[in-house]
Amino acid sequence: MGRIICAGLGPGDPDLISVKSDRAIRGADHVAYFRKIGRQGQARRIVQDMLRADVTEYPMEYPVTTELPFDSPEYRHALAGFYDDWAARLADLAATRDVVVLCEGDPFFYGSFMHLYTRLQGRAEVEVIPGITGMTGCWHATGTPITWGDDVLTVLMGTLPEEDLVHHMQGADALVIMKTGRNLPRVRRALATVGRLQDAWLVERGTMPGQRIERLAEVEDHDCPYFAIVIVHGHGRRPEMEAGE
Amino acid sequence: MGRIICAGLGPGDPDLISVKSDRAIRGADHVAYFRKIGRQGQARRIVQDMLRADVTEYPMEYPVTTELPFDSPEYRHALAGFYDDWAARLADLAATRDVVVLCEGDPFFYGSFMHLYTRLQGRAEVEVIPGITGMTGCWHATGTPITWGDDVLTVLMGTLPEEDLVHHMQGADALVIMKTGRNLPRVRRALATVGRLQDAWLVERGTMPGQRIERLAEVEDHDCPYFAIVIVHGHGRRPEMEAGE
Repeated sequence: MGRIICAGLGPGDPDLISVKSDRAIRGADHVAYFRKIGRQGQARRIVQDMLRADVTEYPMEYPVTTELPFDSPEYRHALAGFYDDWAARLADLAATRDVVVLCEGDPFFYGSFMHLYTRLQGRAEVEVIPGITGMTGCWHATGTPITWGDDVLTVLMGTLPEEDLVHHMQGADALVIMKTGRNLPRVRRALATVGRLQDAWLVERGTMPGQRIERLAEVEDHDCPYFAIVIVHGHGRRPEMEAGE
Repeated sequence: MGRIICAGLGPGDPDLISVKSDRAIRGADHVAYFRKIGRQGQARRIVQDMLRADVTEYPMEYPVTTELPFDSPEYRHALAGFYDDWAARLADLAATRDVVVLCEGDPFFYGSFMHLYTRLQGRAEVEVIPGITGMTGCWHATGTPITWGDDVLTVLMGTLPEEDLVHHMQGADALVIMKTGRNLPRVRRALATVGRLQDAWLVERGTMPGQRIERLAEVEDHDCPYFAIVIVHGHGRRPEMEAGE
């Protein structure tokens, strides 16, 4: 009787993986991870120097992502079938052995693993090991604390409608905006509306080789990959107070 | 010429410390950490089995925290002096050796270390190692993902005025509320106002021995320590979509 162990990988630097995930990955006989067809995949790349030579790998390749619009029923159906199939396959494997599933960042924070996790309930023993989130790696890349004192932090997806972005940005002290890419012009307009565009940074590959940090106002609209993260730092509502409580 | 290395400790389980912080802590000759007078302190407790036998320890004890109101000028002045003194002392030490400063959670996320970090600019070489945030440990303790798809996550301090809490809770999909303690009645009223009280969990010591998880609606007002965290999970705005992007 085995288990499915979802190992959070953290923001990208293998040294920022937790001791517990590191041990699970280095000891694994069977490793599964998501990737796009034809790519090595970021999760697999992070553990490049950690896997045993005799490990068995299970690349879970997302179904075609270009022929169908992301919000079409056909695409959603294909994706649901993909998760169904892999949940069944992992549950089968876990009947007789441990399988480590790699997950970038923290598995419970906007992670794809949760689509397997919900499907595996009652079918296999599942352990999930937390990881440092990708956004944490990005605010460290800027060299500046993201929140102080009583700051309000709001995490938004760039896919949201502009009026929703503006609504949630208003009154927040610190902001993290993920899923930027081609949503960048909308994100930028929303930040300008609430007067925070000049405080915003775009971070790409935080903690990884090729890390890039730029003022968002100076980035070209087309020059923003989907996984880049926008960071606006808080400045502390009552910065001297939290320590004493 | 040494360095000041701030090692993020993560949510409490020593196994959830990053490989990089783990290595820094186990190899350290000089270790500093915050604590209240008369207490061992949570940071020191986490590394209990990791320190070298011959390590030199520097407990940085917060100035008196009961005689003065937290928001009084006298208290803020005492705290600023405390940070000034320790920044000077750490900079002196780092002139000739490495010093590891322990920091619970992630040092750049509501961490006390940042009060030293700002004071140390230009006076010592400082490296900050990210950690898994305490809130990440708490949502893992609930066994349920905090955010899916395009969920909006808002992080709030229970110290905020009730109308600010309500404003920021409105429209958010997932919520994390820190600094609860005696602010619990206000936090609970705000959650009830926005219709989320029944979805809220109180998590104490997430990932640590004595971990406690309860429905917030069932917790007594006086039965909530300051470091307990309230969690309201998101349910995914378009849960099948994020994987394909």
